[in-house]
Amino acid sequence: MGAWETWLADEAARRDAAGLTRRLRPRGADDDVIDLAGNDYLGLSRDPLVASAAADAALTWGAGAGASRLVTGTLSLHTTLEQELAMFLAQPAALVMSSGYHANLAAVTALVDRDCFIVSDGHVHASLIDAARLSRAEIAVTPHNDVAAVAALLDQRRGGRRCLVLVESVYSVLGDAAPLVELAAVCEEHDALLVVDEAHGIGVAGPSGEGLVRALGLAGLPHVVVTATLSKSLGAQGGALLGSPALVEHLVNRARPFIFDTALAPAAAAGALAALRLLRSAPDLPARVRSRVVGLADLLGVEAPAGAVLSVPMPSPQAALAAQAACLDHGVRVGCFRPPSVPDGISRLRVTTNAGVPDDAWQRASDVLLEVVHG
Amino acid sequence: MGAWETWLADEAARRDAAGLTRRLRPRGADDDVIDLAGNDYLGLSRDPLVASAAADAALTWGAGAGASRLVTGTLSLHTTLEQELAMFLAQPAALVMSSGYHANLAAVTALVDRDCFIVSDGHVHASLIDAARLSRAEIAVTPHNDVAAVAALLDQRRGGRRCLVLVESVYSVLGDAAPLVELAAVCEEHDALLVVDEAHGIGVAGPSGEGLVRALGLAGLPHVVVTATLSKSLGAQGGALLGSPALVEHLVNRARPFIFDTALAPAAAAGALAALRLLRSAPDLPARVRSRVVGLADLLGVEAPAGAVLSVPMPSPQAALAAQAACLDHGVRVGCFRPPSVPDGISRLRVTTNAGVPDDAWQRASDVLLEVVHG
Repeated sequence: MGAWETWLADEAARRDAAGLTRRLRPRGADDDVIDLAGNDYLGLSRDPLVASAAADAALTWGAGAGASRLVTGTLSLHTTLEQELAMFLAQPAALVMSSGYHANLAAVTALVDRDCFIVSDGHVHASLIDAARLSRAEIAVTPHNDVAAVAALLDQRRGGRRCLVLVESVYSVLGDAAPLVELAAVCEEHDALLVVDEAHGIGVAGPSGEGLVRALGLAGLPHVVVTATLSKSLGAQGGALLGSPALVEHLVNRARPFIFDTALAPAAAAGALAALRLLRSAPDLPARVRSRVVGLADLLGVEAPAGAVLSVPMPSPQAALAAQAACLDHGVRVGCFRPPSVPDGISRLRVTTNAGVPDDAWQRASDVLLEVVHG
Repeated sequence: MGAWETWLADEAARRDAAGLTRRLRPRGADDDVIDLAGNDYLGLSRDPLVASAAADAALTWGAGAGASRLVTGTLSLHTTLEQELAMFLAQPAALVMSSGYHANLAAVTALVDRDCFIVSDGHVHASLIDAARLSRAEIAVTPHNDVAAVAALLDQRRGGRRCLVLVESVYSVLGDAAPLVELAAVCEEHDALLVVDEAHGIGVAGPSGEGLVRALGLAGLPHVVVTATLSKSLGAQGGALLGSPALVEHLVNRARPFIFDTALAPAAAAGALAALRLLRSAPDLPARVRSRVVGLADLLGVEAPAGAVLSVPMPSPQAALAAQAACLDHGVRVGCFRPPSVPDGISRLRVTTNAGVPDDAWQRASDVLLEVVHG
């Protein structure tokens, strides 16, 4: 056996021994399980208007865009989506990518190089961490939501360098919000650029689901850049960057993950666009998510989150796994976070509020969760 | 104006002055232009079977998969696609991702770390370069297709480290093939793992479009790993890794770009699956591409490529741009490669052979190209 086969076998044995092996579990299109594990917070992925817009786009444009956005892959569909997304988020311009991961890679790597300085919150998503690493800038990680630590790092380390601060508006694991107003002020003061990933904010945070950046009056500020995903509240696939036209033009010219990637497929772009329009025409959807998540948090005795994801701490990884299995036995799929996917080492059930689940099913799921967590 | 706005403006001015500013040019669904710029080599993206499979999947499954593959995003559709893709490429297992870029990021970053050594061909795609950088392994770049240089580097630098060699089966810019048999032998001898990106091989190289790895008898070897895209010959969106079940399991557990990314949208997975089935049932499609590309190369007096992309050297970036514009004036869209997107500094027209273009349109396009390049 060669070095590589031996290494793969050793790694697998180590994972198995630690009880950390993950396996893919395929699901069918209609499996009768109430899904409180995905990120389709508004239930729009399977909304008839959204699904049929995606289907129509596949028939009209084809199954793929056929090339990079810079070659022949930019469809008028992408442009329309960019315009409406920018308008909804009160941003001057937008650029759509093939995934939210890509949007973060593209934004960070196009903006900074090894002469820059990145300050990253300790809880940011893997895509922002990878983006920072790929940029080869110097990186400093702050304790979670610690504005003073951000300010101190910018004070001490700036040294004339361009500085980027990486945060999320709503964090996925703990479900809490970033102190964006304070962070934006610190960034302005230090001439730093604040990059806010609204992946878990759009559709659920802010009075109309417009995300926290707009809700807090920070949209359109030259020192605040937003990244977003089209695969959560907007029910499709893809990501986006939002900011000034100069920023978008810069990414078009310099962001390798944008330039050298096939454009987002027509069906995904059209699905996200239909979901966005539906969200604008049904401004009660975010409130429905909010009322559900607050009610469930109260029922389970945990703090209500800033977004749609409820984080329920469990005594151990084994207890979290057992609770997840018990929920599934009762027809409810919830997520489970264990080390190393949790920033503080505490295993959790991750329960997603989904406005698309019918009332009776939601009630049933709440009962199951109460029984499993406290029963 | 802050430091960031000043920097963006300076960068834009520099690009403009160098004549290197790129702009997005949206196209409509039916713009009457013969497209010889995209990568839809078999013309399958808009094939009625492929487009309707994509549309049906959006209606059945929704516009998005809703979550990461590890949470609730693995659909039986993904599993079917993985099985059939693996079978077509004669590989034991496959793992589908949201883009080909992601497949390369996932494969390389999951396999190596800063204690490893990467040997990369000088012409590999941006996604492999970024993947190598992100892995933080030591990287050495060899002259293009220089097997002796690969062997020498592995001899000198190995030092007990795990080594990865990165190549493409068919290179996109020059259109030439890698000496895969020799590279695989060198890798086996040095206990290194050869990663072959078949993005431009699948669908066009090998007697039935099975790619060069299978055609050369290298499929299934434990020291040869394949990455692929679903957005070129397979007309959709997405990427894949192919290799041993142990390798796939390792990526499921360790590849951050796979783990922390929303699963490929149902429409894209179904589109690629339909295209794959169509390719298997129409084994003359690759031969049609081959005959067109050889005929056009002959007509233009350039060397026939190993894949579907014909590279036509031009005397200057300005001449390449002018020729591209002249083609478009005559209803033919071709690509244009200028520094810094060319590995050797030579600007080129990039002409994609597309089996889906009707015979009369293909003839017209050939006439236009002959006139523009040699007229």
